[in-house]
Amino acid sequence: MKPEPPLPPFDFRRHGHAMVDWIADYLERAEQLPVESQVEPGWVRAQLPQSPPTHGESWDAVQRDIDRVIVPGLTHWQSPNFFAYFPANTCGPSILGELLSAGLGVQGMLWSTSPACTELETLMMDWLAEMLGLPARFRSPEGGGSQGGGVIQDTASSAMLCAAVAARERMLARDPRAGLLVAYASSQAHSSIEKSLRIAGIPASRLRLVPVDEHLAMRADDLRTMVERDRQAGLVPFLCVAAVGSTSTMAIDPVTRLAPICRDHAMWLHVDAAMAGVAAICPEHRWVTEGAELADSWCTNPHKWLAVNFDCDAFWVADRAALVRALSVLPEYLRNSATESGKVIDYRDWQVPLGRRFRALKLWFTIRHAGIEGLQRLVRTHVALAQSLADRMRADPRFIVIDPQRLGLVCFRLAAGCEATSALVRAVNRSGRAMISSTRVPTTPDGKERQVARVSIGQTRCTAAHIDALWNLLRDTLPP
Amino acid sequence: MKPEPPLPPFDFRRHGHAMVDWIADYLERAEQLPVESQVEPGWVRAQLPQSPPTHGESWDAVQRDIDRVIVPGLTHWQSPNFFAYFPANTCGPSILGELLSAGLGVQGMLWSTSPACTELETLMMDWLAEMLGLPARFRSPEGGGSQGGGVIQDTASSAMLCAAVAARERMLARDPRAGLLVAYASSQAHSSIEKSLRIAGIPASRLRLVPVDEHLAMRADDLRTMVERDRQAGLVPFLCVAAVGSTSTMAIDPVTRLAPICRDHAMWLHVDAAMAGVAAICPEHRWVTEGAELADSWCTNPHKWLAVNFDCDAFWVADRAALVRALSVLPEYLRNSATESGKVIDYRDWQVPLGRRFRALKLWFTIRHAGIEGLQRLVRTHVALAQSLADRMRADPRFIVIDPQRLGLVCFRLAAGCEATSALVRAVNRSGRAMISSTRVPTTPDGKERQVARVSIGQTRCTAAHIDALWNLLRDTLPP
Repeated sequence: MKPEPPLPPFDFRRHGHAMVDWIADYLERAEQLPVESQVEPGWVRAQLPQSPPTHGESWDAVQRDIDRVIVPGLTHWQSPNFFAYFPANTCGPSILGELLSAGLGVQGMLWSTSPACTELETLMMDWLAEMLGLPARFRSPEGGGSQGGGVIQDTASSAMLCAAVAARERMLARDPRAGLLVAYASSQAHSSIEKSLRIAGIPASRLRLVPVDEHLAMRADDLRTMVERDRQAGLVPFLCVAAVGSTSTMAIDPVTRLAPICRDHAMWLHVDAAMAGVAAICPEHRWVTEGAELADSWCTNPHKWLAVNFDCDAFWVADRAALVRALSVLPEYLRNSATESGKVIDYRDWQVPLGRRFRALKLWFTIRHAGIEGLQRLVRTHVALAQSLADRMRADPRFIVIDPQRLGLVCFRLAAGCEATSALVRAVNRSGRAMISSTRVPTTPDGKERQVARVSIGQTRCTAAHIDALWNLLRDTLPP
Repeated sequence: MKPEPPLPPFDFRRHGHAMVDWIADYLERAEQLPVESQVEPGWVRAQLPQSPPTHGESWDAVQRDIDRVIVPGLTHWQSPNFFAYFPANTCGPSILGELLSAGLGVQGMLWSTSPACTELETLMMDWLAEMLGLPARFRSPEGGGSQGGGVIQDTASSAMLCAAVAARERMLARDPRAGLLVAYASSQAHSSIEKSLRIAGIPASRLRLVPVDEHLAMRADDLRTMVERDRQAGLVPFLCVAAVGSTSTMAIDPVTRLAPICRDHAMWLHVDAAMAGVAAICPEHRWVTEGAELADSWCTNPHKWLAVNFDCDAFWVADRAALVRALSVLPEYLRNSATESGKVIDYRDWQVPLGRRFRALKLWFTIRHAGIEGLQRLVRTHVALAQSLADRMRADPRFIVIDPQRLGLVCFRLAAGCEATSALVRAVNRSGRAMISSTRVPTTPDGKERQVARVSIGQTRCTAAHIDALWNLLRDTLPP
């Protein structure tokens, strides 16, 4: 690269190669590092100058600070010993997709501001729909669908917000003087639902948390009762969110039984399959897409479990016009002939922000490098590891597995009680040898809320050896 | 990197070095490529398989397709001949910041999920506030402020949405039964305001577009009149958005005169300085921050003009509690002792999505490499180039510069009329030798709306030679 005129010269090739090598080394040694960062609040900041430098510094000094300041302050999501939350897994090709996106530096708000950014994204969303066996209603017209299509959002939270706003606008278009809108989700639903609704102007008091059955899945009969009661009270049910794989325990709401209720009341049905949806790439797990043909929108996160860097949420809608009507504002300075021809997608109308990165590259690179087969192997490996861990827990009377154990998530509690479970999670994380997380949910046999530990298996490099080590760590950490 | 177990092996070092070299070559040759992509709708997709591969492909095939399919489908935002919209500029260190962020693959939703991700971001926002001379109210407590602080948003649109929701919740907290909320912005305001309000449940009918003066700046007296009229009608003014550098023409709303009106009516004052705000790094341009000490929130985009890759919007609030109250929902599975200690920031509560990338790295790398001095030189270079272009236009009776010409934006129309201006923009863009954009705004002397061409100078590698070439192109393209 030529020296960039007003900025100091920068040897991009040399420093770029060094950064690639640093990352390769980091990913190799990540499993030796304490998974959860051990620093105290304020430590990272205290290592650095409190004011910006007047003059440019040498790159060597910058590179050194990565090891000195940044690494100790990381919680290592790319360690194969990371089992907390849900994963944010990656792979080499995906990292290079992010690099290329940054290097090209295009901003794909409109088709015309980089046709490749838009068209590759539409194609990738069609590829993904095919890989997951999603119904034609979510494909683009070019991909065998008709009125639907897919878009990459940063997160499932943003997908949720787009679905909520589209649902709201669809209802208001039918009746601009509709009364107070009400939404429904299970009591196990993700916090992003309450947050999205709040952003959309719908307070928590109008989000109904529908009771769940013993497997923590939404009760369809309760949904129907609640919707009917709300309608009788003059309220306007407009949105139901089904969790296919709840965050706490991978509980599965019965989409096919919720859909007729939504249809009867003209409610938007959004399916949030953020973690679980990716599993549909394997025929034996395709049950996670059950009912998708009845949903208005459906999302899953390749950035959780398809080896594609965060951020990459795949969000599909059955009626793109409903989404675009809700999110499109066309000012004069963005007018262009391609948009006016109606032949292209302008993805700015499918999301909250105006600008957008070229995120389809990382999907494209990952899918082409791994093939469907490779990605199936990834999912199957993790599912098998989770089963093997759950089996070992079931054989040990000190552990109580929360059943049904599903996909890559193993939830368990200790027979010794909630305090013991919490103490175990804290001790494991403090050890630095693994990181798990915890939640609180109603548990069998008595339905009482209890502390539950979560082991979420999905990191790209996680192997049987890491699960063996985790199992030993869990047992060694138990109180005597 | 060791082979990633379930995925096919990938030589990350070798392919990573090759990708770095490809990007270095691309950035060198970008100026020779037609700036606006010349492909027809559907061309990019038609070059690629319509279904995903079952088996993994060779990386060479992938790498080849970048040149074969992607490059022709790009509009080259990194060409120094790109003058459309506002820029999305970059530099080598920033690209490596994105690479490192992807390689580390951490997700900084909570302080505890990577303290470095949060603490470096807070520090970078304090550094930026110092570089731009922003008031202490926007600094973090650690950085010399008290109740305020900054956060990186993806775009100014998302910052706008956060400001709108915080403003709405603050007003509703004062009076939960407040009537219909009303917002104000100039008739020149960015489309993201209408879009954010719509998302937040406030229809366009409750966004008042305040008339502008002959320089397209909001008239403070009209704002006061409109606010008072709305209050008399029982409506509740809650938000005023000041554009400091409107998108069309870099018009500057008079923040210091709007602020007292906002204070009198307890309205939230948000300043959108997306492009212009960065100029405050130079003392001679610091006027763009005038009135910031009276604003509730203020944003600018390092990804436009500070050589930091899109996405990087810097968003500050004077009262972090107002923002967090609006956006925080704490589910059980995210509870942790650091959060509960109250000693840390969890940036998930400062934004719409839950997850977040480590975007502070690209700011840190860029500022340290360039120093304040280097970034000042970047801004000064572009401002001088814009002035030189405007001067040449003023000396040619065929061109009418829209005055006051400000910072890096040159707006002009042709004496030959709107049709001629539009035709010129189209012809320049079709030539591939440069890309400019257009808008429609009221113009002097008669206030009539006319077609106006925009030349936005801010690409990192843009030099006098590129402006000379553009000037020649513009003159050569004029109808005889």
